Amino acid sequence: MSKVNLADKFRKFEDLWSPKLVGELNENYIKLAKGKGELDWHSHENEDEFFLVVSGHLDIHLRDEVISLDPGEFYVVAKGVEHRPVAIEGTEIVLIEPKETLHTGTKKIDQTVAIEDQEWI
Amino acid sequence: MSKVNLADKFRKFEDLWSPKLVGELNENYIKLAKGKGELDWHSHENEDEFFLVVSGHLDIHLRDEVISLDPGEFYVVAKGVEHRPVAIEGTEIVLIEPKETLHTGTKKIDQTVAIEDQEWI
Repeated sequence: MSKVNLADKFRKFEDLWSPKLVGELNENYIKLAKGKGELDWHSHENEDEFFLVVSGHLDIHLRDEVISLDPGEFYVVAKGVEHRPVAIEGTEIVLIEPKETLHTGTKKIDQTVAIEDQEWI
Repeated sequence: MSKVNLADKFRKFEDLWSPKLVGELNENYIKLAKGKGELDWHSHENEDEFFLVVSGHLDIHLRDEVISLDPGEFYVVAKGVEHRPVAIEGTEIVLIEPKETLHTGTKKIDQTVAIEDQEWI
Protein backbone atom coordinates (compact mmCIF):
# COMPACT_ATOMS: atom_id res chain seq x y z
CA MET A 1 0.00 0.00 0.00
CA SER A 2 0.94 3.66 -0.17
CA LYS A 3 0.81 5.96 2.81
CA VAL A 4 -2.47 7.74 3.41
CA ASN A 5 -2.66 11.48 3.93
CA LEU A 6 -5.93 12.08 5.74
CA ALA A 7 -6.48 15.64 4.47
CA ASP A 8 -5.91 14.56 0.84
CA LYS A 9 -8.39 11.72 1.19
CA PHE A 10 -11.05 13.83 2.88
CA ARG A 11 -10.91 16.24 -0.08
CA LYS A 12 -11.94 13.38 -2.39
CA PHE A 13 -15.56 13.06 -1.29
CA GLU A 14 -18.44 15.10 0.07
CA ASP A 15 -21.22 12.61 0.82
CA LEU A 16 -22.32 12.33 4.43
CA TRP A 17 -22.41 9.20 6.61
CA SER A 18 -21.02 7.17 3.73
CA PRO A 19 -17.68 5.71 4.84
CA LYS A 20 -14.91 5.35 2.26
CA LEU A 21 -12.23 2.67 2.48
CA VAL A 22 -8.62 3.79 2.88
CA GLY A 23 -6.84 0.82 4.42
CA GLU A 24 -6.92 -2.71 5.79
CA LEU A 25 -5.62 -3.78 9.16
CA ASN A 26 -5.89 -7.31 10.53
CA GLU A 27 -9.34 -8.05 9.10
CA ASN A 28 -10.52 -4.52 9.83
CA TYR A 29 -11.14 -1.76 7.36
CA ILE A 30 -9.85 1.75 7.99
CA LYS A 31 -12.50 4.15 6.73
CA LEU A 32 -13.05 7.88 6.45
CA ALA A 33 -16.45 9.45 6.89
CA LYS A 34 -17.94 12.91 6.84
CA GLY A 35 -20.88 13.53 9.11
CA LYS A 36 -23.48 16.23 9.62
CA GLY A 37 -26.66 15.75 11.59
CA GLU A 38 -27.43 12.35 12.97
CA LEU A 39 -27.29 8.70 12.10
CA ASP A 40 -30.04 6.56 13.63
CA TRP A 41 -29.59 4.45 16.77
CA HIS A 42 -27.87 1.15 16.02
CA SER A 43 -25.46 -1.38 17.46
CA HIS A 44 -22.92 -3.87 16.14
CA GLU A 45 -23.42 -7.30 17.62
CA ASN A 46 -19.87 -8.62 17.56
CA GLU A 47 -17.65 -5.72 16.63
CA ASP A 48 -16.07 -2.81 18.44
CA GLU A 49 -16.05 0.41 16.40
CA PHE A 50 -13.30 3.05 16.61
CA PHE A 51 -14.11 6.74 16.04
CA LEU A 52 -11.32 9.34 15.81
CA VAL A 53 -12.42 12.90 15.11
CA VAL A 54 -10.09 14.81 12.75
CA SER A 55 -12.15 17.99 12.39
CA GLY A 56 -15.52 19.30 13.53
CA HIS A 57 -17.32 17.76 16.49
CA LEU A 58 -19.03 14.42 17.06
CA ASP A 59 -21.37 13.48 19.88
CA ILE A 60 -21.80 9.76 20.28
CA HIS A 61 -25.06 9.29 22.13
CA LEU A 62 -25.21 6.16 24.24
CA ARG A 63 -28.36 5.20 26.14
CA ASP A 64 -27.00 6.59 29.41
CA GLU A 65 -24.44 9.22 28.41
CA VAL A 66 -23.07 11.32 25.56
CA ILE A 67 -19.44 10.99 24.47
CA SER A 68 -18.40 14.37 23.12
CA LEU A 69 -15.44 14.27 20.71
CA ASP A 70 -13.35 17.16 19.45
CA PRO A 71 -10.47 16.85 16.96
CA GLY A 72 -7.70 14.64 18.32
CA GLU A 73 -10.08 12.59 20.46
CA PHE A 74 -11.19 9.02 19.96
CA TYR A 75 -13.67 6.59 21.45
CA VAL A 76 -14.33 2.90 20.95
CA VAL A 77 -17.99 1.86 21.00
CA ALA A 78 -17.92 -1.64 22.42
CA LYS A 79 -19.70 -4.49 20.68
CA GLY A 80 -23.41 -4.63 21.36
CA VAL A 81 -23.69 -1.07 22.68
CA GLU A 82 -26.46 1.02 21.12
CA HIS A 83 -25.23 4.37 19.86
CA ARG A 84 -26.31 7.32 17.76
CA PRO A 85 -23.65 9.59 16.21
CA VAL A 86 -24.54 13.28 15.88
CA ALA A 87 -22.12 15.62 14.08
CA ILE A 88 -21.82 19.29 13.29
CA GLU A 89 -21.20 20.35 9.70
CA GLY A 90 -17.66 19.68 8.53
CA THR A 91 -17.00 16.77 10.87
CA GLU A 92 -14.36 14.36 9.58
CA ILE A 93 -13.96 10.97 11.22
CA VAL A 94 -11.55 8.02 10.98
CA LEU A 95 -13.38 4.74 11.59
CA ILE A 96 -11.85 1.34 12.14
CA GLU A 97 -14.08 -1.72 12.30
CA PRO A 98 -14.12 -5.33 11.11
CA LYS A 99 -14.62 -5.83 7.39
CA GLU A 100 -18.02 -7.42 7.89
CA THR A 101 -19.36 -4.43 9.84
CA LEU A 102 -22.15 -2.34 8.38
CA HIS A 103 -21.85 1.28 9.54
CA THR A 104 -25.49 1.25 10.60
CA GLY A 105 -25.08 -2.01 12.47
CA THR A 106 -27.89 -4.54 12.57
CA LYS A 107 -30.36 -1.87 11.43
CA LYS A 108 -30.94 -1.25 7.71
CA ILE A 109 -31.96 2.35 7.17
CA ASP A 110 -31.97 4.81 4.29
CA GLN A 111 -28.37 5.74 5.04
CA THR A 112 -27.11 2.14 5.01
CA VAL A 113 -24.37 1.47 2.45
CA ALA A 114 -23.99 -2.23 1.62
CA ILE A 115 -20.56 -3.69 2.31
CA GLU A 116 -19.97 -4.45 -1.37
CA ASP A 117 -20.86 -0.86 -2.27
CA GLN A 118 -18.26 0.70 0.00
CA GLU A 119 -15.87 2.64 -2.17
CA TRP A 120 -12.06 2.75 -2.03
CA ILE A 121 -10.65 6.25 -2.38
CA MET B 1 -14.22 3.27 28.55
CA SER B 2 -13.80 7.04 28.56
CA LYS B 3 -12.91 9.00 25.46
CA VAL B 4 -9.20 9.46 24.80
CA ASN B 5 -7.69 12.88 24.14
CA LEU B 6 -4.43 12.17 22.33
CA ALA B 7 -2.64 15.35 23.44
CA ASP B 8 -3.52 14.71 27.11
CA LYS B 9 -2.23 11.17 26.91
CA PHE B 10 1.00 12.11 25.16
CA ARG B 11 1.75 14.52 28.00
CA LYS B 12 1.72 11.59 30.43
CA PHE B 13 4.97 9.94 29.39
CA GLU B 14 8.37 10.76 27.97
CA ASP B 15 10.07 7.42 27.35
CA LEU B 16 10.97 6.61 23.77
CA TRP B 17 9.92 3.57 21.72
CA SER B 18 7.92 2.30 24.67
CA PRO B 19 4.27 2.08 23.60
CA LYS B 20 1.57 2.84 26.17
CA LEU B 21 -1.89 1.28 26.05
CA VAL B 22 -4.86 3.61 25.58
CA GLY B 23 -7.60 1.40 24.15
CA GLU B 24 -8.80 -1.98 22.93
CA LEU B 25 -10.43 -2.66 19.60
CA ASN B 26 -11.45 -6.11 18.37
CA GLU B 27 -8.48 -7.97 19.86
CA ASN B 28 -6.13 -5.13 19.00
CA TYR B 29 -4.54 -2.67 21.36
CA ILE B 30 -4.49 1.04 20.55
CA LYS B 31 -1.15 2.38 21.74
CA LEU B 32 0.70 5.68 21.85
CA ALA B 33 4.44 5.92 21.37
CA LYS B 34 7.06 8.60 21.28
CA GLY B 35 10.01 8.05 19.01
CA LYS B 36 13.41 9.62 18.43
CA GLY B 37 16.17 7.96 16.48
CA GLU B 38 15.68 4.44 15.27
CA LEU B 39 14.26 1.12 16.30
CA ASP B 40 16.03 -1.93 14.89
CA TRP B 41 14.83 -3.88 11.84
CA HIS B 42 12.06 -6.30 12.72
CA SER B 43 8.89 -7.87 11.38
CA HIS B 44 5.63 -9.22 12.78
CA GLU B 45 4.87 -12.67 11.46
CA ASN B 46 1.08 -12.62 11.54
CA GLU B 47 0.05 -9.09 12.32
CA ASP B 48 -0.39 -5.89 10.38
CA GLU B 49 0.76 -2.80 12.27
CA PHE B 50 -0.87 0.65 11.92
CA PHE B 51 1.22 3.82 12.33
CA LEU B 52 -0.46 7.25 12.44
CA VAL B 53 1.85 10.21 12.99
CA VAL B 54 0.38 12.93 15.24
CA SER B 55 3.43 15.17 15.47
CA GLY B 56 7.03 15.15 14.32
CA HIS B 57 8.15 12.94 11.44
CA LEU B 58 8.55 9.19 11.02
CA ASP B 59 10.38 7.36 8.26
CA ILE B 60 9.44 3.71 8.03
CA HIS B 61 12.30 2.03 6.24
CA LEU B 62 11.32 -1.04 4.26
CA ARG B 63 13.90 -3.14 2.44
CA ASP B 64 13.08 -1.52 -0.91
CA GLU B 65 11.64 1.92 -0.05
CA VAL B 66 11.15 4.49 2.70
CA ILE B 67 7.64 5.52 3.76
CA SER B 68 7.89 9.10 4.96
CA LEU B 69 5.11 10.17 7.34
CA ASP B 70 4.20 13.68 8.46
CA PRO B 71 1.43 14.53 10.94
CA GLY B 72 -1.96 13.39 9.66
CA GLU B 73 -0.50 10.54 7.64
CA PHE B 74 -0.73 6.82 8.31
CA TYR B 75 0.71 3.60 6.94
CA VAL B 76 0.01 -0.05 7.61
CA VAL B 77 3.05 -2.33 7.64
CA ALA B 78 1.73 -5.63 6.37
CA LYS B 79 2.38 -8.85 8.24
CA GLY B 80 5.79 -10.35 7.60
CA VAL B 81 7.31 -7.18 6.13
CA GLU B 82 10.66 -6.14 7.62
CA HIS B 83 10.73 -2.54 8.73
CA ARG B 84 12.81 -0.07 10.69
CA PRO B 85 11.14 3.07 12.12
CA VAL B 86 13.28 6.21 12.30
CA ALA B 87 11.88 9.33 13.96
CA ILE B 88 12.92 12.90 14.59
CA GLU B 89 12.75 14.27 18.12
CA GLY B 90 9.22 14.97 19.30
CA THR B 91 7.54 12.38 17.10
CA GLU B 92 4.22 11.11 18.47
CA ILE B 93 2.62 8.03 16.97
CA VAL B 94 -0.67 6.15 17.32
CA LEU B 95 -0.15 2.41 16.86
CA ILE B 96 -2.80 -0.25 16.45
CA GLU B 97 -1.81 -3.90 16.44
CA PRO B 98 -3.06 -7.23 17.79
CA LYS B 99 -2.73 -7.71 21.52
CA GLU B 100 -0.15 -10.44 21.13
CA THR B 101 2.17 -8.21 19.07
CA LEU B 102 5.54 -7.19 20.47
CA HIS B 103 6.53 -3.77 19.14
CA THR B 104 9.92 -5.11 18.13
CA GLY B 105 8.35 -8.10 16.40
CA THR B 106 10.07 -11.46 16.44
CA LYS B 107 13.34 -9.81 17.50
CA LYS B 108 14.11 -9.28 21.19
CA ILE B 109 16.37 -6.26 21.58
CA ASP B 110 17.28 -3.84 24.35
CA GLN B 111 14.26 -1.72 23.50
CA THR B 112 11.79 -4.62 23.67
CA VAL B 113 9.01 -4.16 26.23
CA ALA B 114 7.36 -7.45 27.23
CA ILE B 115 3.61 -7.61 26.57
CA GLU B 116 2.83 -7.96 30.27
CA ASP B 117 4.95 -4.87 31.03
CA GLN B 118 3.06 -2.60 28.66
CA GLU B 119 1.54 0.16 30.72
CA TRP B 120 -1.98 1.62 30.54
CA ILE B 121 -2.05 5.39 30.71
